[in-house]
Amino acid sequence: MLGFIDSNILIGMAKPRKKHLSTRTLLTDAAFRTIHQGGFQSAGLCAILSETGLTKGALYHHFDSKLALGYAVVEGPLRDYVNDWWLAPLEGKDDPLQAFAEVIAARLKKDIPQMLKLGCPLNNLAQEMAPVDDGFRTLIEILYRDWRRGFAKALRQGQHAGAVDTSIDVDATAAFIIAALQGAFSQAKNAQDLAVFRQCLTGLNEYLNSLRP
Amino acid sequence: MLGFIDSNILIGMAKPRKKHLSTRTLLTDAAFRTIHQGGFQSAGLCAILSETGLTKGALYHHFDSKLALGYAVVEGPLRDYVNDWWLAPLEGKDDPLQAFAEVIAARLKKDIPQMLKLGCPLNNLAQEMAPVDDGFRTLIEILYRDWRRGFAKALRQGQHAGAVDTSIDVDATAAFIIAALQGAFSQAKNAQDLAVFRQCLTGLNEYLNSLRP
Repeated sequence: MLGFIDSNILIGMAKPRKKHLSTRTLLTDAAFRTIHQGGFQSAGLCAILSETGLTKGALYHHFDSKLALGYAVVEGPLRDYVNDWWLAPLEGKDDPLQAFAEVIAARLKKDIPQMLKLGCPLNNLAQEMAPVDDGFRTLIEILYRDWRRGFAKALRQGQHAGAVDTSIDVDATAAFIIAALQGAFSQAKNAQDLAVFRQCLTGLNEYLNSLRP
Repeated sequence: MLGFIDSNILIGMAKPRKKHLSTRTLLTDAAFRTIHQGGFQSAGLCAILSETGLTKGALYHHFDSKLALGYAVVEGPLRDYVNDWWLAPLEGKDDPLQAFAEVIAARLKKDIPQMLKLGCPLNNLAQEMAPVDDGFRTLIEILYRDWRRGFAKALRQGQHAGAVDTSIDVDATAAFIIAALQGAFSQAKNAQDLAVFRQCLTGLNEYLNSLRP
């Protein structure tokens, strides 16, 4: 059960792409799915290639090594996941708290239950690779930083629009909300139980309400 | 740098023990430290034994396998870590929010900066072993559940004592706070930067204040 995932969900994490994907994108998307299922270190290049129908030659034309492909996954599909799932829905919104609650509610209908089997792809990769490879750690840190900044920017817009308490520290609040979300995924992945995730979300909703003016 | 840790800190995570530790306890404590430094799968039995000065015979007298030793680490030193760091300081306190803020402040002086290099031992082991071994997953889940229950119990006592808002869902709040703490460790471990942890804590403190009556 732990190894299973609906691959449509994983594809759904990547940014909507043009019909004719570039070879590079085909490779990073396939690598992203494979890494999410079993981690980077155990991801086999053959498994990645067999999904794409491409040859090893095509792979090495685009990437010098498996590590280079892994880095491209962080900068491509993993960044798309953060943007599409968590940042884009808040962009330009006067009430980012409402927008955030709505996006979680929408994702809870299908995407999150599916994803709980494997956990959050960003958290997983950070836990696996940051301690053993500083290149991964640095790229993942840039992604976390951009997530925090994007969330803080949305909260700031909410403050200007009168939807968010102006006394809160938006940077700290953004870091805290992202931490809580990541921790909720971790706990629920370990429990293999959506009930734990929902419990964390109840706490998160109470918190979001406390950020109102 | 990532591989370094002050072993006194790790010893400090285990429950204060009698001067003459049992062989079993010597083994699980050494295994806990070794696992925290590089994960369970890459932990070598020779490295664990060399710390204790014991023989392989002594090890196999107490544990059938490396897996059995790993399970005993979850039920022994890892449970002690959760109890000693996070639950015992709240026990019997009429103001668990204050007690929790105080324990974090105290730990921030030395223990947490040291621990950030390796991350939270519970979160690490859950991320590494829950997806690949159901025995680990189940034992870790029991530990998470007991942490949530212990924290919820402390919050309930705070409600009775008038120090915590009686309208909050204590179970959800406990799950949410633990999630936020775990996520803060994850983000800070990846950043290798205490500033990120402090940022999450600022958000956490704002949240704790919102739980006042």
